[in-house]
Amino acid sequence: MEKVRRNERMSAIMKMLSSAPNRIFTLSSFCEMFGSAKSTMSEDVDLLREMCSHFDLGVVETVTGAAGGVRYRPAVSRNKARETIQDLCRKLSGSERVLPGGFLYYSDILSTPDIVNRMGEIIASEYTEVEPDFVLTMETKGIPVAFATANALGIPLVIARHSSKVYEGSAVNISYVSGSGSIETMSLSRRAVKENQRALIVDDFLKGGGTAKGMVELMREFNVTVAGMAFVMATVTPEKKRVSGEKSLMTLAVRDGEPAEAVVRPAEWLMADN
Amino acid sequence: MEKVRRNERMSAIMKMLSSAPNRIFTLSSFCEMFGSAKSTMSEDVDLLREMCSHFDLGVVETVTGAAGGVRYRPAVSRNKARETIQDLCRKLSGSERVLPGGFLYYSDILSTPDIVNRMGEIIASEYTEVEPDFVLTMETKGIPVAFATANALGIPLVIARHSSKVYEGSAVNISYVSGSGSIETMSLSRRAVKENQRALIVDDFLKGGGTAKGMVELMREFNVTVAGMAFVMATVTPEKKRVSGEKSLMTLAVRDGEPAEAVVRPAEWLMADN
Repeated sequence: MEKVRRNERMSAIMKMLSSAPNRIFTLSSFCEMFGSAKSTMSEDVDLLREMCSHFDLGVVETVTGAAGGVRYRPAVSRNKARETIQDLCRKLSGSERVLPGGFLYYSDILSTPDIVNRMGEIIASEYTEVEPDFVLTMETKGIPVAFATANALGIPLVIARHSSKVYEGSAVNISYVSGSGSIETMSLSRRAVKENQRALIVDDFLKGGGTAKGMVELMREFNVTVAGMAFVMATVTPEKKRVSGEKSLMTLAVRDGEPAEAVVRPAEWLMADN
Repeated sequence: MEKVRRNERMSAIMKMLSSAPNRIFTLSSFCEMFGSAKSTMSEDVDLLREMCSHFDLGVVETVTGAAGGVRYRPAVSRNKARETIQDLCRKLSGSERVLPGGFLYYSDILSTPDIVNRMGEIIASEYTEVEPDFVLTMETKGIPVAFATANALGIPLVIARHSSKVYEGSAVNISYVSGSGSIETMSLSRRAVKENQRALIVDDFLKGGGTAKGMVELMREFNVTVAGMAFVMATVTPEKKRVSGEKSLMTLAVRDGEPAEAVVRPAEWLMADN
């Protein structure tokens, strides 16, 4: 086997680690791949850890113990998160995106990979420490962001549906009061989660909190703990939501007028010092 | 500024390139970040190109011209794609996942980031050359794979809905015949796509092809060309689908019996030599 240079090894390892966040790679798997000694690989990993920290590119961690190895987490610094969200607020504010009825059009933002990945990484960075087992969202618009969050945390995504489907097997259905005041159904396959797991709820929009509360109740049916809740956008009114303790990335107010104007701001916790 | 070593520079560049597939980074942006000369950066990029090719980690490309620079594509080799899909087929085959009515439970597979990303990269690798402007999917189950495909191609995802929503603005609605023979509605916001764009349709399941045909018709309403169609799973029967030219990753047959058994196989095109 031709000798692989350190710069090649390190770039290859960086690529593999960052493509599978939170997955633990053993040093031996890298040793085998590159035909290097364990001490050499340890040095490579140390250098990568410093590099990531220096350039604010996330965290390379060594995990000790029998199942030990190296893993990568896309930890977004508060500064970088703030910059990303401020940019987004500028894009969403103004009158261009306001629809009849005072709704804001941002479906495009919710499915543009580059933006979605960054939002997912910001949410994941906030909830790494509560160690969720999966991310829960309610169809449809929040799915990409929820998926990006799950990806950044290296955990599965679970999608609640409006009705149970034959291809999901037996399901638990609950009723909840939606934003518009109507009674709706939320359904989740029995196979989707296990008792005593921890859920991180991620969704695109928080107004009254009816859907979010529905998800909390759904998790209770499964004996699952809700470890956290995050939303892309929360409306300024009503101030009191049916859930609490959530983190949103942005807040939305729509000012009446001709034309009506959307005021989108970074959430307070993002602007506070870490 | 402290001098940054080649191994650090290369790993950092690799991380940034691979986190934003198909985005063009200018050499000057890297020069600025690392305080290096353009010739040095060119050498770094050359080494990364060789490394990626050597370890089958995708493609690093130099784009010439005024808007030129460097970009990364997660091109999956036929061999690696085959291995991934064969693994998946083993996981899905057998009787454990067969539901009453002969349906296969694989919602978990469709939202586990690691698997979804690999499926997305395989699909993206097949359709890079047709240069789609966006990925189109129909809610709900195919959204994560469609998003991962869009991510790997560096293009937006567009999600068609079952009904038009107030927060999507004015929409085009069409009727289509679903798999079960009922007439359903498919809706897409007018703002979501532009005339003369090219769509790559990605969805989780292909049986009769009713929904897929609906998406093709929806694109016709927008004067959008369908550049390709890919599905995670296609049923063996009916053999004749309402669409043609599609690529699926796997085929599904369910054998009657006690218990019934799912036979999941890699699609033929995957098993053929590239």
